Amino acid sequence: MKADARRFFSLAELAGHFGGTVLGDAAVRIRQVAPLETAGPDELSFLTNRKYQKLLSTTRAAAVLLSEDSADATQLPRIVCRNPYASYARISALINPENRPAAGIHPDAVVDAQASVAASASIGPCAVIEKGAEIGEFAVIGANSFVGREARIGAHSRLHPNVTIYHHCVIGERVSLHSGVVIGADGFGMAMDDGRWLKIPQIGRVVIGDDVEVGAGTTIDRGALDDTVIDEGVKLDNQIQIGHNCHIGAHTAIAGCTGIAGSTRIGKYCMLGGGAMISGHLTIADRVTVSGGTLVAKSITAPGTYTAVFPMQPHAQWLKNAALVRRLDELMERVRGLENKAKKLGKE
Amino acid sequence: MKADARRFFSLAELAGHFGGTVLGDAAVRIRQVAPLETAGPDELSFLTNRKYQKLLSTTRAAAVLLSEDSADATQLPRIVCRNPYASYARISALINPENRPAAGIHPDAVVDAQASVAASASIGPCAVIEKGAEIGEFAVIGANSFVGREARIGAHSRLHPNVTIYHHCVIGERVSLHSGVVIGADGFGMAMDDGRWLKIPQIGRVVIGDDVEVGAGTTIDRGALDDTVIDEGVKLDNQIQIGHNCHIGAHTAIAGCTGIAGSTRIGKYCMLGGGAMISGHLTIADRVTVSGGTLVAKSITAPGTYTAVFPMQPHAQWLKNAALVRRLDELMERVRGLENKAKKLGKE
Amino acid sequence: MKADARRFFSLAELAGHFGGTVLGDAAVRIRQVAPLETAGPDELSFLTNRKYQKLLSTTRAAAVLLSEDSADATQLPRIVCRNPYASYARISALINPENRPAAGIHPDAVVDAQASVAASASIGPCAVIEKGAEIGEFAVIGANSFVGREARIGAHSRLHPNVTIYHHCVIGERVSLHSGVVIGADGFGMAMDDGRWLKIPQIGRVVIGDDVEVGAGTTIDRGALDDTVIDEGVKLDNQIQIGHNCHIGAHTAIAGCTGIAGSTRIGKYCMLGGGAMISGHLTIADRVTVSGGTLVAKSITAPGTYTAVFPMQPHAQWLKNAALVRRLDELMERVRGLENKAKKLGKE
Repeated sequence: MKADARRFFSLAELAGHFGGTVLGDAAVRIRQVAPLETAGPDELSFLTNRKYQKLLSTTRAAAVLLSEDSADATQLPRIVCRNPYASYARISALINPENRPAAGIHPDAVVDAQASVAASASIGPCAVIEKGAEIGEFAVIGANSFVGREARIGAHSRLHPNVTIYHHCVIGERVSLHSGVVIGADGFGMAMDDGRWLKIPQIGRVVIGDDVEVGAGTTIDRGALDDTVIDEGVKLDNQIQIGHNCHIGAHTAIAGCTGIAGSTRIGKYCMLGGGAMISGHLTIADRVTVSGGTLVAKSITAPGTYTAVFPMQPHAQWLKNAALVRRLDELMERVRGLENKAKKLGKE
Repeated sequence: MKADARRFFSLAELAGHFGGTVLGDAAVRIRQVAPLETAGPDELSFLTNRKYQKLLSTTRAAAVLLSEDSADATQLPRIVCRNPYASYARISALINPENRPAAGIHPDAVVDAQASVAASASIGPCAVIEKGAEIGEFAVIGANSFVGREARIGAHSRLHPNVTIYHHCVIGERVSLHSGVVIGADGFGMAMDDGRWLKIPQIGRVVIGDDVEVGAGTTIDRGALDDTVIDEGVKLDNQIQIGHNCHIGAHTAIAGCTGIAGSTRIGKYCMLGGGAMISGHLTIADRVTVSGGTLVAKSITAPGTYTAVFPMQPHAQWLKNAALVRRLDELMERVRGLENKAKKLGKE
Repeated sequence: MKADARRFFSLAELAGHFGGTVLGDAAVRIRQVAPLETAGPDELSFLTNRKYQKLLSTTRAAAVLLSEDSADATQLPRIVCRNPYASYARISALINPENRPAAGIHPDAVVDAQASVAASASIGPCAVIEKGAEIGEFAVIGANSFVGREARIGAHSRLHPNVTIYHHCVIGERVSLHSGVVIGADGFGMAMDDGRWLKIPQIGRVVIGDDVEVGAGTTIDRGALDDTVIDEGVKLDNQIQIGHNCHIGAHTAIAGCTGIAGSTRIGKYCMLGGGAMISGHLTIADRVTVSGGTLVAKSITAPGTYTAVFPMQPHAQWLKNAALVRRLDELMERVRGLENKAKKLGKE
């Protein structure tokens, strides 16, 4: 919250901390970060896209972060830097430090006597830590969260309130899991026998690397036999579903409402748009971008952007065109017929 | 539950409370509401769609709600009114009042000494209320729910069990949040720098207006810099995801499984069908209807209904037509070729 | 977890328990199950698909489960059986029994004095059981879960941590509900009146049959007037949304991220692929398969597989073809024009 910003930083200080060259008054004092349109007189803004450059002439910001090729686009006090968006992220983190609760086990937490909790960790009220679980240094377990038996939460990681970690799962360091996240529920595996589904025990784990962030309501199922693995630096938005035995490569970012069926491998540095659905048992190469709403039913072997979205139209037009999609086979037939006629006519 | 209906109302009483004209026996006693097909002898039913009119001849209902143009469609005791569906809603609410727990803080709740809880509010067992939070008059905080520091819950609002409200968020009056809802988790914002994602602190809030209902498992992220805003009277179904900095206009209704990416503005009185995906940074005009399953990738500036759905077919037919969608470019080329030939033939 | 496997079984013992004929050394000792690729020397693997048959020559498994027609595909010790996948499921369940907590009410659980809890049931810490609720024999209520007033949980059923059951809902026997599941939240029903939505009380229940499994984060809404019903043996994956008054037929399996709008009836033994969206008020016949990502907007009256998915392409190709989908009506017109010209030419 903006109200948390409690002190001022000079432009010179900020450039000192995070790099970049100050142009203009280096003593300007910054209390907060803000977009160009709404920034006030003690706020720092940033230009990360040339198309917003005209806002520089009207902004009330005290100073601006921009890249070298825009260094002269304003006369406001400014920090010229290599990656203004990254500098903005770092400066905002300095100004708005995360509020982490004090170390210690809340008297209303329920921690098994055979769990191991670092002295610097914080366990919130009504959190439940089962036997054999390990909570690392400076980790935070939010109120009403659950850590199952033998699960491990790495140092500096944070479970927000109402997070569930099933037994034996492993969470790396500096991982952030938002409320409603469920890690390690049973994968969807069953065998049909005599008209009834038999459950297949899901005996793998979920193993999450360092520096992963998982958004609210996202679910990651434990493996059937082997583990489900989320590599370091992966960023998952809200309400993503990851099936059993998936492997998500390092630094891949996945937008909300995306589903990944079981045993699929996603490469490194991929970007999946919101609402994408990836079928099971596929392999997606490194640095693949999948557009939002796209269903991927085949493996993708080369980097690039892939899309599968029906174009939106006013409903009346859609009705006509959708009906014709159903008749494409006939349309192609009719074109072939015309081509044959044309060929015959040509011969006559 | 039907079992909760404890007393009888006469047709005359109901018309007196909610308007409409009684035709037939006004002393008929009503214990419950029910559909025409299944209504029993002390139940009130309703006709809201002419296509169900024939059910009037077979219903066992004690009485019926209908509109003026259907007033003579039955001789059953009836209330003739302007909006039978709305009258049914009001009468059902009278007969089936919400069961709200008694005022008071459950001894197993965990309420910070610096939180403010109205005397008429109810705080359930294992609910956690952090420092600086405010719980309004007659508000209900369900079991195992969490209200973060400095968050505010308006009068008469209800958090069902297992709801999470992050710090500083603001919930209006008469708001209902169903189980699994997460309000105010961090938006999905990060900057790529040297092959790693840097987190961008999400320092805005979520601000929810009065008379909003939010379905189970829906998540609404806090703003990156400004707030995410849900205006009054918005109705959200289950498992909806609303990204940071979105603005949902008043009285808009959104069906389940819909995702709205960051910074999109949805107008007033819109209707979004289930499973719709709305891209980020768009503007959707007032009174727009988006069909279920539609991906919206461009702003919509005029009211109306918009659709983008591949038509369903038996799989074998789909295989043929989907393959041809991939060849539409070629098909168009071949039609152009034919047209050129036809033109030449016409000239000869 | 594999670490839980504590004892060895001989092939002879396993065939004795679950049927099948042992070929080769029946005394081979099995500690765990594993896939052909990764199985180690005391592990049992299985062949369920002929296309993996070549792995039999390289596997390090101690023994293999296979069907009669593959009985001679390897000389490894083996159990030849009717349904190797089902045998694998049963053997794995024997080797990896579910870890269920001991009977009893945890001192940090909150159980209403007027709730009924079987002596053999287990109620976890911070679980909340309301007045009139009934918890059956050997049922397990996980930490931080909630069972509302008058709800019933059948014998041997399990709520994992952070599950919510609203009032009056009925859960059958041997049902498994994973974390984040919400059963019985209000359906999405409202009437528009004078520019405002009026809530329609949702007075039905959710009734779940025996042997149902529900994945993490799935939500099933209570009925508006009648009940929402999930028949016996239904298997639901994660993050599924089932609207009010739906009826899901016995032994139907639904993959993750699927949404089913209100009042839809799904038949028995159906299979719905991940991310499918089913509109409201439809009827889907028994033994229908819906492909992943398919939107179903009409009832389906015959068994079979149905699909509606835009085919994925590299983005540049998609741009061309998607633009042409919008012009299908024009393309058809042009083909018609050509056909008319051809007809005229034919007549000349």
